[in-house]
Amino acid sequence: MKNFKPYYAVIFTSTHTNHIKGYTEMASKMEELATQQKGFLGIDSAKNDVGITVSYWETLEDIKNWKQQRDHLVAQQKGISDWYSWYNVRICKVEREYDFKK
Amino acid sequence: MKNFKPYYAVIFTSTHTNHIKGYTEMASKMEELATQQKGFLGIDSAKNDVGITVSYWETLEDIKNWKQQRDHLVAQQKGISDWYSWYNVRICKVEREYDFKK
Repeated sequence: MKNFKPYYAVIFTSTHTNHIKGYTEMASKMEELATQQKGFLGIDSAKNDVGITVSYWETLEDIKNWKQQRDHLVAQQKGISDWYSWYNVRICKVEREYDFKK
Repeated sequence: MKNFKPYYAVIFTSTHTNHIKGYTEMASKMEELATQQKGFLGIDSAKNDVGITVSYWETLEDIKNWKQQRDHLVAQQKGISDWYSWYNVRICKVEREYDFKK
């Protein structure tokens, strides 16, 4: 763990309404757009009863900028009006990390 | 965000081998066992190509204790030998949080 440089994770958990028209396309578009933002490090996403998307960023400033990005704001509004019945956003500092590969 | 008390999240992302016998039962058993541990706050889980499980804890000590819990150690070994082709564990401090409800 020497020289580990902390970075940030945004944990987005959600449940959906029955109104899902346009959601999948927008989700893909937003994921693609996120990868083009300054400070973007990666994203993981999975969805069953609950959807979980975790995105990783270099700084809190990068997260703030992405939240305020123009096309993303439109997507967030559409999410609130149509797609999500509930969501939660957690801003986290990644303090340690380890992995396993076969 | 006044009086927000930071807590901790463990982001566990994984991909699976084709050897999945016993996995679902063990995953349920571990989730149930986690809820009984000191400092456990909650858990979210979803799985498509990638599996994501995020568990929430009061302190880093609670996370350490859960990692070393006897039955959990057995599950971790089985995960490494049989079920996971890859996994990543991130220990995070949740610094801010907000949600939306319809």
